This record gives sequence, C-alpha cells and structure tokens, in this order.
Amino acid sequence: MIELTKKSATSPANIAFIKYWGKKNSKLNIPYNNSISMNLDSCLTTTTVHFMDNLKEDEVVIDCKKVEGEARNRVVRILDIVRTWAKIKTKAKVSSINNFPSDAGVASSASAFSALALAASSSAGLKLSKKKLSILARLGSGSASRSVISGFSEWKKGSTTNDSYAVQIEKPSYWDLRDIVTIVSSEKKEKSSTEGHGAALTSPYFKERQKELISRTNNLKKAFLRKDIDTFGKLLEEETLDLHLIAMTSKPPIFYLNSTTFAVMQVLRELRVKGIKGYYTMDAGPNVHIICRQKDVDIINKTIKRVPGVKSTIINKARVGTRFSNNHLF
Amino acid sequence: MIELTKKSATSPANIAFIKYWGKKNSKLNIPYNNSISMNLDSCLTTTTVHFMDNLKEDEVVIDCKKVEGEARNRVVRILDIVRTWAKIKTKAKVSSINNFPSDAGVASSASAFSALALAASSSAGLKLSKKKLSILARLGSGSASRSVISGFSEWKKGSTTNDSYAVQIEKPSYWDLRDIVTIVSSEKKEKSSTEGHGAALTSPYFKERQKELISRTNNLKKAFLRKDIDTFGKLLEEETLDLHLIAMTSKPPIFYLNSTTFAVMQVLRELRVKGIKGYYTMDAGPNVHIICRQKDVDIINKTIKRVPGVKSTIINKARVGTRFSNNHLF
Repeated sequence: MIELTKKSATSPANIAFIKYWGKKNSKLNIPYNNSISMNLDSCLTTTTVHFMDNLKEDEVVIDCKKVEGEARNRVVRILDIVRTWAKIKTKAKVSSINNFPSDAGVASSASAFSALALAASSSAGLKLSKKKLSILARLGSGSASRSVISGFSEWKKGSTTNDSYAVQIEKPSYWDLRDIVTIVSSEKKEKSSTEGHGAALTSPYFKERQKELISRTNNLKKAFLRKDIDTFGKLLEEETLDLHLIAMTSKPPIFYLNSTTFAVMQVLRELRVKGIKGYYTMDAGPNVHIICRQKDVDIINKTIKRVPGVKSTIINKARVGTRFSNNHLF
Repeated sequence: MIELTKKSATSPANIAFIKYWGKKNSKLNIPYNNSISMNLDSCLTTTTVHFMDNLKEDEVVIDCKKVEGEARNRVVRILDIVRTWAKIKTKAKVSSINNFPSDAGVASSASAFSALALAASSSAGLKLSKKKLSILARLGSGSASRSVISGFSEWKKGSTTNDSYAVQIEKPSYWDLRDIVTIVSSEKKEKSSTEGHGAALTSPYFKERQKELISRTNNLKKAFLRKDIDTFGKLLEEETLDLHLIAMTSKPPIFYLNSTTFAVMQVLRELRVKGIKGYYTMDAGPNVHIICRQKDVDIINKTIKRVPGVKSTIINKARVGTRFSNNHLF
C-alpha cells in the first residue's frame, strides 16, 4: 500500500528568452515551438499537498484563501492525474503561497504548477523523474514545465503529452545573467495569457513567426552558450517584439504593454549607447524583465528606478528548479 | 515660345489611412501597394517658382534659408523633369515656406513636392492634368502624389511611372472627418521614412502584409464610403500597428513611437468605452493623428492635451488639394 504523507515543494517562476505563444493542443498544453528560459530565484511558490482519507473533496487554499471555480479546477485536474498515476481515490488538501505579490505581474502559474506537481506526486507516494515531473507541471500550465529545471532550460515542444517537456541547457552558474523584474503596473491585465494563446493564430503573421523561430531559437541558444551578450540581447529583444506584434495583430488586437514599458525600453537603448548592456523582454503584461550581467545590475537598477511610472524592481538570478521544502503550510 | 512667369502654389500635407511603406522602384517612387489619405487643411506649404534667363544655377530657398546638398538635389530633380517636359534649359529660383513648424513631426515632403510640382510646371508654361501633376509630385516624394487631390484620395500603385498616381475617392465635404495632429515630440526622428522604406523588405512579415492589405484597403474604403466610423477606425488602427510592426521587425528594428504615443493610444481606447470615438494613426514618427468626427473634436482635443508629454495639437479637416496661390514668396 502507498503511504500518503504531507509533502511540500518550492519552485521558481521563470522568464522566457524564447516565448511560448500559441497552443497546438490547448487541453494538453502542447506548444507550437520550443521555448527557452531561466528560472528566477527571487520569485518562488511554496506548495504543500496532503492526500488524506477523511476528506470528502479536494480543498485548495492559495495565499491563505480557499479558492473555488476555475482556479480550483486547474489544481484538481493535476490532483486527478496524480490519483490516476498513483491508483488512489483519496482527496487532498492543497495550500500554496507566493513570496512575491500576485499583482507584481510576474506569472505565478509556472512556479505554482511546478511546485504542485512535485508536492502532489510525492504526497501520493510517486517518485517521478525530472522528465515526468516536467510533463505533469506542463499539464497544469505550459511554462511550468520549464520551472522544474535548474538554471537555464529548453522546453522541447514534442508532439504528444509524453514527449513535450523541458530539459536543462546549462546549470545556474554557467553564466551570471540576471533578471531585473521592473514593475510598471500592478493592475490586473485586461487579457490573460490564456486568451492571448488562443488569439495568436488569428494573427496573419503567426505562421511566418514559426518559420523565423527555428533560426532565432538556434542562434539565441548558440549566443547563450558562447556568452555573447550582444547577440543574445539582440535576439532576446527581437523575440519579445515578435510576440507582442503577434498579440497586437491578433483579431481583435491585444495590448499587453503600456507607456512606461516603452519608456523603460528607451532608457535601456540609451544605456547601451554608454556601454551598459541591459536587454528587455516582456511576457503577457507591461512589466519589463531586464536581462543583464551581474556587473551591470546596480547601475541599471538605479537608473531604471528613476523612470517615471516604475513602481519597484526585483533582482533575480538563475538557481535550482523545483525542489522539496520543509516549510509545510499546514 | 513659352512664356516663363513667376508662379506660386499652395498644397496641404495629408494623413494616410492606408500607408505607403516599401518601394518597388525607389528611384521612381513606385510603391508596393495602393494607399489612401485625406489632406490636411491646416498644414500647408506654399512654393514660388520662377524660371529666369539670368540664373546660372537653380537656387532653392526653404523657410527663408538657402539650401544645398540632398535637400536641394531633390528639388532640382523635379526642375529637371519639368525642363525636359517643357523643352527648356532655363534655371529657376524656388522658394518654399510651411505654415506649420518643421519640427511638428508632420511630414512636409508631401505638401512641399505637390506645391513644387504645380508651381514649377506652370512657371515653365505647362498646363498639366491632375493625373500628370500627381505623377510629377510623386517623383519628388511618393506621398505628395496624394496631396494634389482634393478631399480624400487613393494613390493607385500602378507599375510604371505613367500609371502610378492618385485619384479622388470623395470630395472634402463627403464626411466630416477631422485629424487632430497630436505633437508628442518635436525631436528630429532617429530614422527617416526613407530609411524605413528601405528596411521594410527586411521584415519577415512584409510579404504577408501585402496580402493582408488587399482586403484591408478594400474594406477600409467601403467603411469610409458608408461612413461607418467603427469599422473605419478599427481598420485604421490595424493598419497603423501593421506598419509599425513592419518597422519594428525590420533588421535592425526601427522604432518610431515613444512612450507618450502609447499613452495617447491608451486614452483613446478609454474614451471609446465612453462612446467618444477617436482613432489613432501614426506615420514614421511618434506623433499621433487622431481621426474622429467633427462632433467629437472638442472633447477629444481637451482630453488629449492633458496627457503628460503632449506638447500641442493641430486640428485639420479635408479641403482642396494643390492649388495656385497669389502669395508670391519673392
């Protein structure tokens, strides 16, 4: 008989250098293209799961509040998969907390579903391989597949649920890249990234983007491996604009960026003229992730905080991916 | 013998609803696609030309200053064509003045070359048809072909220099559209529109844009003719973003917009929720042209002027195109 114990896991958010945008299979979160990311050591979710015999229903608590509806359903869906894999029917208690404000505009679904994947599977007595863990996390939220991995990872798109998962490109210490998360808005975004994924295929440019991505992904990975910040940064920004162009040419158009986003982009271009190299990337929201080397963090951070509209920054490096935690939430 | 007299002409700038971006023949300014515009009655150039026997060289004065180099060469090129057509060798004196500041970010080449086309050809004794005048203006600056026409015009791309010219879609009074030119920057732009034209073909999306333009141009014209501001505005903004996406995906990318541009776009979207309908379009620069109906001009103008970063506005309606003037500049 399987022993059902209380298990906790901690997992980082991640920032994509090559984005995940558009789903080939929206139920299984199978993407159109490979994506590349680094995880963010300052943006963490911790999740505790306990399958317990006396529960009538799964109980889901996020940031100390019991949740219902779609937020709960997404968690239950992962619990159901774990139950199938573990051949159990027991209901579970789940509690999850982020160390970064949910309104900071850093997507918490990647850290949340990767932490859930490890905590839930181990609470059910399963010992999943990294690959299997990445797949389980992906079924909760596509980008969560990458958070499982330490350092820098690539999500291989695959074509079925069993071959779509992330692998490590390099360990955290390979290159001293930093991500200065620059919060320009804490408003709830008008359109979710799920809506953006759905709309992506209505852009007349989506198909051409897929063609471009082949060489861009390849070149960005090469630039990363030889630590060529100029080429890496150029491709990073090209990819960012590309994603937002797809969003803006979706029908109807989706705007994730705001005027402060553009002000920050402009300041980064000005800093580069002076030899201070920070490059922007934005996900489905207006906040800017500034990718730079450790030596430039202080000057960039100081300069960016003076831009009108910038609320705060969070400095991140790459570290370990999803791991066990002793910090039980109940 | 031809009588060479002093002639003056006045001509409006224009704002394109469907843009001219990318040249099939860059010497002859033959475009890849048809474009559509309204002329701007508050943004005028007046030009005086006199072919005079005693001149050794063409003399070109713009805004009271004698110009040399490329600015002069572009004018001389038009004078040369006129001399060929009129079978004369006489040199000319040219003086030109804009009633709008050259740093207002409203392109003055359309008004300037259309005024030059009429003043120069008539000073040389030629009586050109509207078609021939539009062709001559086009040879100076592509978009000048449209300023020749009264009200709302379409530049038919054609395929040779003799069939690439603008025709009227409707007269000025057909629809009470206004253009609130919103100046957000008076800095000289980093990249000229000529550079943008050249770079357009390096965008991976240029070809797909051309396909999209066929239905967009057709639909925008239909929406214009039935005075359907919602559909017209939607297509206008779609086209604007499309042009800037091409610029931003050119290699290297070109950015014409700034953070205030995006702030103005956002305010327009907010006004529309309240039923006040203003739509944005931007040419190769950060200033916003707000297209709306007369009844909404005051409230939009008042609201937009309060947006931080907006320096001033110029309200325009469509009126007569290139015409003779009695206001001789010398």
